[in-house]
Amino acid sequence: MYKAVITVTLRPSILDPQGKAAQHALATLGFEAIARVRVGKFVEMWINEESADAAYIAATAACEKLLANPVMENFHVEVAKVSDAG
Amino acid sequence: MYKAVITVTLRPSILDPQGKAAQHALATLGFEAIARVRVGKFVEMWINEESADAAYIAATAACEKLLANPVMENFHVEVAKVSDAG
Repeated sequence: MYKAVITVTLRPSILDPQGKAAQHALATLGFEAIARVRVGKFVEMWINEESADAAYIAATAACEKLLANPVMENFHVEVAKVSDAG
Repeated sequence: MYKAVITVTLRPSILDPQGKAAQHALATLGFEAIARVRVGKFVEMWINEESADAAYIAATAACEKLLANPVMENFHVEVAKVSDAG
């Protein structure tokens, strides 16, 4: 069993209204030092494959086909061997 | 300038319908090896503070007060010194 830890982030050139709203709300709450916020997705995936390479390929294809929008988002995949799907 | 990298994840005991939907959609697309998916938030935050300690305290308080629901979610904060808000 392998576990893929994936972050999906908006490309730097794309405006992030959710992050802007969070930053604005934090400023209202007194967090003036927080100058900029960007919000993305964090995905954990447990994969039944024979090797880390095969798990990495599956996780990357899953991002390309479903989880990320390649026009607007970047993604980063890390795969580690784990004992079970806990 | 410090940058906080934050992950907000559902507590393990909480059902994750978004993750379940992603896992089901991936199975339909042929990714049968992907046994389990959990979806959370990934937040990047640029903070004007004097020290990493102060930035860490601000980021943690921001999670507790706005970004995470402490009943259902866990969060993890990492703070690093960066050159600017790029």
